[in-house]
Amino acid sequence: MRKFRVALVGAGRIGRIHAANVASHPQLSLSHVVDPVSRSAEAVAAGAGARVASLANVLADASVDGVIVASSTDMHLDCCLAAHAAGKAIFCEKPLDLSLARLTRAARDLADARLFVGFNRRFDPHFAALRAQLAEGAVGKLESLQITSNDPAPPPIDYVLVSGGLFRDMAIHDFDMARWLLGEPVSEIFAWGAALVDPAIGEAGDIDTARTVLKTPSGRLCAIANSRRSGFGYDQRIEAYGSAGMLRAGNVVESTLQVWSEPGARADRFQNFFLDRYAAAYAAEMAHFADVLAGRATPLIGFDDGTAALALAEAAGRSLADGKPVRL
Amino acid sequence: MRKFRVALVGAGRIGRIHAANVASHPQLSLSHVVDPVSRSAEAVAAGAGARVASLANVLADASVDGVIVASSTDMHLDCCLAAHAAGKAIFCEKPLDLSLARLTRAARDLADARLFVGFNRRFDPHFAALRAQLAEGAVGKLESLQITSNDPAPPPIDYVLVSGGLFRDMAIHDFDMARWLLGEPVSEIFAWGAALVDPAIGEAGDIDTARTVLKTPSGRLCAIANSRRSGFGYDQRIEAYGSAGMLRAGNVVESTLQVWSEPGARADRFQNFFLDRYAAAYAAEMAHFADVLAGRATPLIGFDDGTAALALAEAAGRSLADGKPVRL
Amino acid sequence: MRKFRVALVGAGRIGRIHAANVASHPQLSLSHVVDPVSRSAEAVAAGAGARVASLANVLADASVDGVIVASSTDMHLDCCLAAHAAGKAIFCEKPLDLSLARLTRAARDLADARLFVGFNRRFDPHFAALRAQLAEGAVGKLESLQITSNDPAPPPIDYVLVSGGLFRDMAIHDFDMARWLLGEPVSEIFAWGAALVDPAIGEAGDIDTARTVLKTPSGRLCAIANSRRSGFGYDQRIEAYGSAGMLRAGNVVESTLQVWSEPGARADRFQNFFLDRYAAAYAAEMAHFADVLAGRATPLIGFDDGTAALALAEAAGRSLADGKPVRL
Amino acid sequence: MRKFRVALVGAGRIGRIHAANVASHPQLSLSHVVDPVSRSAEAVAAGAGARVASLANVLADASVDGVIVASSTDMHLDCCLAAHAAGKAIFCEKPLDLSLARLTRAARDLADARLFVGFNRRFDPHFAALRAQLAEGAVGKLESLQITSNDPAPPPIDYVLVSGGLFRDMAIHDFDMARWLLGEPVSEIFAWGAALVDPAIGEAGDIDTARTVLKTPSGRLCAIANSRRSGFGYDQRIEAYGSAGMLRAGNVVESTLQVWSEPGARADRFQNFFLDRYAAAYAAEMAHFADVLAGRATPLIGFDDGTAALALAEAAGRSLADGKPVRL
Repeated sequence: MRKFRVALVGAGRIGRIHAANVASHPQLSLSHVVDPVSRSAEAVAAGAGARVASLANVLADASVDGVIVASSTDMHLDCCLAAHAAGKAIFCEKPLDLSLARLTRAARDLADARLFVGFNRRFDPHFAALRAQLAEGAVGKLESLQITSNDPAPPPIDYVLVSGGLFRDMAIHDFDMARWLLGEPVSEIFAWGAALVDPAIGEAGDIDTARTVLKTPSGRLCAIANSRRSGFGYDQRIEAYGSAGMLRAGNVVESTLQVWSEPGARADRFQNFFLDRYAAAYAAEMAHFADVLAGRATPLIGFDDGTAALALAEAAGRSLADGKPVRL
Repeated sequence: MRKFRVALVGAGRIGRIHAANVASHPQLSLSHVVDPVSRSAEAVAAGAGARVASLANVLADASVDGVIVASSTDMHLDCCLAAHAAGKAIFCEKPLDLSLARLTRAARDLADARLFVGFNRRFDPHFAALRAQLAEGAVGKLESLQITSNDPAPPPIDYVLVSGGLFRDMAIHDFDMARWLLGEPVSEIFAWGAALVDPAIGEAGDIDTARTVLKTPSGRLCAIANSRRSGFGYDQRIEAYGSAGMLRAGNVVESTLQVWSEPGARADRFQNFFLDRYAAAYAAEMAHFADVLAGRATPLIGFDDGTAALALAEAAGRSLADGKPVRL
Repeated sequence: MRKFRVALVGAGRIGRIHAANVASHPQLSLSHVVDPVSRSAEAVAAGAGARVASLANVLADASVDGVIVASSTDMHLDCCLAAHAAGKAIFCEKPLDLSLARLTRAARDLADARLFVGFNRRFDPHFAALRAQLAEGAVGKLESLQITSNDPAPPPIDYVLVSGGLFRDMAIHDFDMARWLLGEPVSEIFAWGAALVDPAIGEAGDIDTARTVLKTPSGRLCAIANSRRSGFGYDQRIEAYGSAGMLRAGNVVESTLQVWSEPGARADRFQNFFLDRYAAAYAAEMAHFADVLAGRATPLIGFDDGTAALALAEAAGRSLADGKPVRL
Repeated sequence: MRKFRVALVGAGRIGRIHAANVASHPQLSLSHVVDPVSRSAEAVAAGAGARVASLANVLADASVDGVIVASSTDMHLDCCLAAHAAGKAIFCEKPLDLSLARLTRAARDLADARLFVGFNRRFDPHFAALRAQLAEGAVGKLESLQITSNDPAPPPIDYVLVSGGLFRDMAIHDFDMARWLLGEPVSEIFAWGAALVDPAIGEAGDIDTARTVLKTPSGRLCAIANSRRSGFGYDQRIEAYGSAGMLRAGNVVESTLQVWSEPGARADRFQNFFLDRYAAAYAAEMAHFADVLAGRATPLIGFDDGTAALALAEAAGRSLADGKPVRL
C-alpha cells in the first residue's frame, strides 16, 4: 500500500493535531513542516520525523503529494493557489479567506484544484449520524433546523481583532452545517447580535452573541444561536425537525459519571472545546484527505462550499449592519 | 374559612378543567355555568352542583364573587367588561382579544378591574422553577433565550380560520414567556414563517412554522421556534443563557419507563398536549384566583400583560408581512 | 351514581392522604374518622365533613360501606377482623401484621373478606407501565430483576424499634414487587445486611443496609438493594431483564429543570419521599377501592398477597440470622 | 527518549488491539509476534514492522524489553514464568490462569516479576472517574456497590467449554472491580446462577445468569449482576452508595443522536462490546506498561490481584455448587 507524503504549513494548535493524525494514518507520512516560527516548526517536525522547510522548497519537491494549510487565515488563499499551481492536493483549514471578493477572484484559478476545505463538523460522528438519519427519512421531510453553537469562553481580544468577526470566524461553521443539512440553497438571511459577554468585543466593532435565521426557497427555516461564552463548555447541538418527528445531536460529556446527591443528579463536565469534541472529526478528515490523495474520493467539501459559507457570513454581517434581511 | 362563589362562562374543554379545579379547591365553589350550548352547560353544572344560567343572571347575582371567562375568544372582552361593571373579579382565558385596537379602547374601562389573565405557562412548575433560579442568579445575568413551542399536530382548518393566526393564537404564549423572563421590554421583533405542515393552512392565509427573534434595549436576544406539528407530542422547552451557564426546562414524559433493546434506549412518550402538560399549571392558576378573591393577592398577570403579548403577536404578523423587523 | 360511605381508622400521615383521596373521588364520601388521638381525628373529620367516632360505632353503622385501616400496624389485623365480621369492605395499609403466625391463624376468618391490601407501588404509574410492557413481551421472557429501594434518610430510632425491622417494614414492598413481577413463586431467599447508616439501628438489633436475592423454580433471579439512607431522596427503581432487552423505571425529579454550568449539567432534586413519589399511586388505590365497593372489581391485592410478602420478609430475616439461604 | 521493544505472544483479537496500541505509543515498538497460527502472526507482524518468531527466540533476544501475553488462557502462566525467568517485563491478559492451585504454586517464582495483569476496566475513563470521586469523598464513606456486567450475546458453546465458566471468565472482571472499589478485602461471598439464556450452556455445566453478593469485614455489601446476554449491547455499569449520595458510571452510546417521534425519544445504540467500550482502556493500559518498562511506575495490578480475583471466582463457584455462602 503506497504511502503519501504530505507537508504541513502552520505548526500551531490545529497544525499539531493534523500532524498527529497524519502520523497515525497508515497511508500518510509527514514530509515537511513550514512555519515562520522556527521553534514551532522544529518541534512538530522532530516528533514526526519530518523536515523543516520553506513553502517554496516544499512545493518544489516532487515527492510531496499533498499540502495541509493550517497557517494563519490571511495566508490560506495564497498557500492554496501556490500549492495548486505546484500540482499538490490541498487540505485547507476553514475559512478559505475572510474576503468574498478575493475568493471570487481566485475561483477560476482553483476551479480544478484537488482542494478539501476542513469544515470539521461534517465529520463529527454525532452530526454525521444526524444527517444520515435525516437522509434515511427517520423523521420524514425536513422542515426546520435549530443550530446551537456556543464557545466555552471568549477568545483574547487580540484574536477577536483579526478574526474577521463572529460570523466569519465562528458562525461560518454553522452556515456550513445549515447548507449541509437544509437540502436547498439559502435564499435569505437575517441576523441580530450584541456584545453582551465582553464589552471589549463591542468596542472592537464585533459582537459576541447572535441569533441568525436562514430561509430557503421552499420555506424551510434555520435558526442559529451563537455566543462566545456558554459558561459550561463547548455547546454544539443541532435539532432537525421533520414531518414525523425530530432528530437531535448534542454535547458530549467527559465521562458517564453521575453524582446523585441532595441537590439532584449531576452529570460529568461537558467536553470543554473543539480539540476534545472534534478529535474524531479531525482524524476522519485526515482519512478523507488520504482517500483524496489515493484517488479513491474527490473532496467532500470544496472551494464552492468554502465560498458559499463565507457568502452567508458576509450576508449575516450586512443584515446585522442594516437591520434587515439580506437576499442571496 | 370563607368560600367564594364563582361562575363559569364557557363549558368547553378548558372550561371543564377550570370547573374541576374550582371543585377541588377548598375555598371555591362553582355557582353557575353559562354556555350557549345548553347541553354542555348542564353537564358541567350537574357534575359540580352548580346551576345553568345566563350571563345577565350571573352578573345580577350579588352572591357571585368571581367569573371565569372561558368562552370563545370573540366573547372574552365583552364578558370582562360586563363582569367588571358588575363588580366581579375575573379570571379570563388568553387571549383577552384578537384585536389590539379593541383592547386599547377597553383599557380605561378595565383600568381598575380585578382581572387575572390566564397565561397558564407562568404557573407550570418547570418554567416557574427556571424563572426562580434565574432570579436567584443561578446562571448569572441573562443574555439570551431560546423558546421552543410546538404543538403535537395541527388543529382542524375550521379552528385555524377563527384562531387569529399562529402568532395571536399559539405564539402569544411564547411572547408572554419572553416578557416574563427577559426582564426588559421587547424593543424590536422579527419573524419569518411558512406553511410547511398543512397546505390548507397556507391557503387560509396563515402559517404553521415560524422562527421569531426578539430584542431588548440592552441587546438581549430571544429566539422562538414554533410549529403546529412536532410529530412527538407537546414540545415545550425553554433555555435561558446567562453569564455563568444555562438553565433549561423541558418536556415531560408519561412515565420514567425506558426500554433498552437492540436499537438503543427508548424513553416513554412525551405528554401529548396541554391538558396533560399544564394540568398542574391550571390548578395553580385557580389557587391564585382564589387568593385574588380572598384579597391575599393582586392578579399576577393583568390587562397590561394581555395587551402587551397581543402587541407582540401583531408586530410579529406585521414583520412577517413586510419582511423586515418591527420596532415597538 | 351511588356514593359509598367509608370510615377512616387512623388519622396520621397516611390516613390524611387517604382522606383527601376519598374526598376527591366522585363515588366516595368520608363518613367517620377513628383515632385514639382525638385532635387528629377531629382535624381530619372537620376537613372532610365527617364525624369522629369509635370503631365500634362505625362498625355498627349500617350506612358505612367500607373501612380504611390506616392505624398503627399492631391494630391492623384486629381492625380487619372486626370490620369483616361487621360486613364491611376493607382497605388495609401494609403490612397486614408483623407476625406470620398471627396471619396464618386469621386466614380462615378472612377467607371471604372483601379485603384490599395497600401495596401502593403496584399502582405507581412508572412501575405499572413497566409491568404492562413486560406482560406485552416488550423485552421477551423475563430472566432477572433488580429492585433498588432506598429511603432518603433513616427514621427515628423510636420508629425503628416498633417497625418490625427492615425486612418487614421496608423491604416488604420490594418482596411484593418481586412477587408481582416474577411470574412465579419465590422458592428460595438469601439476605445479607448490616447497620452502616446509623449505629443505633444496629444496637436496636436491626439493619439499615441489605442485599437480598430471590430465586424461582425456573431459575429466575431477583436482587434487592435496600438502604435506610440514599442521601439524595427517594430511590425507587426497577430493572427487568428479559430475553430481548431490559425495562427500567426510575426515580422522579421535582421538575425538568437543569442547570448547565462549569461542573456539568445538574438535574433538579429527586422527589424526596413516598408522599410525593406515590401520590398518584395512593389516588389510584382509592379508585380501585371504589371499584371494589361498587362491585366492579375484586381486590387486586388480597390477604394471600399480604401474607406471602410477610413470609418473604420473615424468611429474609431468618437467612440473615442463620447466614444461609432459606427455602420457602 | 528511549523506545522499548516489546514482543507480542498471541495474535488474536485482543493481541491485535495491543499491537495497534504499541504502534501508536511514542515509546514502544513491536519487535516480534509469536503465534502458533503463522498466518495470524505474519499479518500482525507485517502491519507493525515486526518479525514472526518463536517464544524461545524472543526470550533469548536481549534487545526485547517486555512481553505481552495475549495467548490462549492455558498458556498465560507458562509464558509469564518463562518471560520472567528471561528477565522481561510482562503485560499479561486476564486471567493469569484458571486454576488457583497452579497460581499458588507459581507465586514464589513470580514474586519479584515486573508483571502487569490486564484488568482493563480499571483503566476505563468512566470507572476511573467514579473511583477518583469516591476517593475524594464526593459521596462520603462507601457503604455498598452494585456492579452490572452483561455481555451483549452469549459466546459460542465451544468458547464456553474452555472458558473456565462464567465466574472465572466473565465475572472475574467484576470481582476485580469490587476489590478495587470496596477498600477492604472481601470476607464472604454468595452466588446463585442459572442457565436461562442458552440451554446448551447449562448442558455444558455452566451458567449464563448470576447474582453474586460480597461482604467485607465492616459490613460493606457488593451485589454483582451477570448475564451472558443483555439484548442491547455491552452493559457495564457501577453504582457506589456512600453516606452522602451515590456515584454511578454507565453505558456508552455510539453517538449523542436522539430520535424524538411518536413512541418517545430514542437514544442511539449502546456500544456493542468490549472492543468499543474499552478501547480507551486498552490504550491506557499500554501507556502504563510503557511507564513500567521505563521504570516510571510499578504495575498497578500485579500477581496478587490476579490471584485474588481468581480466588473470588472459585469461591463463587463453590457457593453456587453448595448453595451457601463461602468464607474467604
